[in-house]
Amino acid sequence: MTTCADEKPIPTTFGVLLFPGFQALDVFGPIDVLNTLALSKKLNLHIIAETLDPVTTKLPQPNTTGSEFHECIVPTHTFATVPPLDFLLVPGGLGTRAPGLDPTRQFVKNIYPSLKYLMTVCTGSALIAPTGLLDGRSATGNKKLWAWVTSQGPKVNWVAQARWVVDGNIWTSSGIAAGMDAMYAFVKYIWGEEQSKDLAMSLEYERHTDPHWDPFAEYWGATWPLTPGAGSGDGSAGGGD
Amino acid sequence: MTTCADEKPIPTTFGVLLFPGFQALDVFGPIDVLNTLALSKKLNLHIIAETLDPVTTKLPQPNTTGSEFHECIVPTHTFATVPPLDFLLVPGGLGTRAPGLDPTRQFVKNIYPSLKYLMTVCTGSALIAPTGLLDGRSATGNKKLWAWVTSQGPKVNWVAQARWVVDGNIWTSSGIAAGMDAMYAFVKYIWGEEQSKDLAMSLEYERHTDPHWDPFAEYWGATWPLTPGAGSGDGSAGGGD
Repeated sequence: MTTCADEKPIPTTFGVLLFPGFQALDVFGPIDVLNTLALSKKLNLHIIAETLDPVTTKLPQPNTTGSEFHECIVPTHTFATVPPLDFLLVPGGLGTRAPGLDPTRQFVKNIYPSLKYLMTVCTGSALIAPTGLLDGRSATGNKKLWAWVTSQGPKVNWVAQARWVVDGNIWTSSGIAAGMDAMYAFVKYIWGEEQSKDLAMSLEYERHTDPHWDPFAEYWGATWPLTPGAGSGDGSAGGGD
Repeated sequence: MTTCADEKPIPTTFGVLLFPGFQALDVFGPIDVLNTLALSKKLNLHIIAETLDPVTTKLPQPNTTGSEFHECIVPTHTFATVPPLDFLLVPGGLGTRAPGLDPTRQFVKNIYPSLKYLMTVCTGSALIAPTGLLDGRSATGNKKLWAWVTSQGPKVNWVAQARWVVDGNIWTSSGIAAGMDAMYAFVKYIWGEEQSKDLAMSLEYERHTDPHWDPFAEYWGATWPLTPGAGSGDGSAGGGD
């Protein structure tokens, strides 16, 4: 597990962190790239939550529409039982703004020093920002909720115009679908362009390969420092988190 | 529930069909569009499988890499207990080529007459083709596995160059990621372009809005009728299903 500073560690054991009200595509967009990669490379996945109860995408917050529209995923490990990981994926979701997430944040803070890579998708960066792990680093997150995202980490060098940002071994992606592009970029970084392209062609996905491609920043008025009044959607109606 | 022939029925109750070895993004790409729509419209989702046991993305076929990389989803209903549905999503996945899927096919065949809409993603069209539901209709599916897909429905008017195809109330999409574009197109069809665009901007997804956009057909040599020797990948290495 010890590596020279200039060596690029190859991850084989992946974890994904779940909490109630996570956004499904934040998880399954990037993870399905790896599901497919795992058909040709030996990779392992652990699905981690506070308890072993299935974790729902249902929001902890009250539902104003009366919809019953959610999915439940079965964890394989708790914060206490997860084996060593090379890579941890932290999704976002409207659940990131629910109370009771301190144990989840503490888990990320505790495991980070043993990780080779940490990746967040969407408001996953806002979820972990209070741990201080992103302080002094460049990072990005959901553009519709940019004002809230950035408020979670006043010492972070937030990058408004970015599909994803890499700083050291921490990868942060923009909102929801951006996690797929971040993961294809990560696969390219680790296993090369041919591998990344082959996966994308197999999954019939057109990658955005430029980390600066981000029409959503302008659309939602996301800037850094913040432009007063812009990018301040609270996501309470219409979602997108 | 009775509607005039020229009326466009609005679906509110959705179902997704799961089976072992389904492809995660086939489900969660389209479904997460609806997860988000359900924050502003009253929609319900039922997750349907042969039994109520969690359904794994793990392939029924032997795993040659030694990977343990899969996710398990909790069904809400079995084939026997599912309430009436307006819309059924049928994903694909390498599991479509496992034995024992006759009850799954029979469920789709039995429920179809009561549906307002049926959508397949990827090899989902190949899964249901043996039921005859696609006979005489235009349909598409996974391009890497095109030869196998089309072999499952000799009486289907297969469309090689298509991101998705609509024939009557059956929507079939191309491979994996194409399911997202098909769902955004469906949302546009039902609720209008502004709703579809708002969802895509919130999920930071760049839609392909042209159903004929399909660079993957050429890449994988998918034609109809088949060109001998082309588009005949069996997906046994590198996946993509």
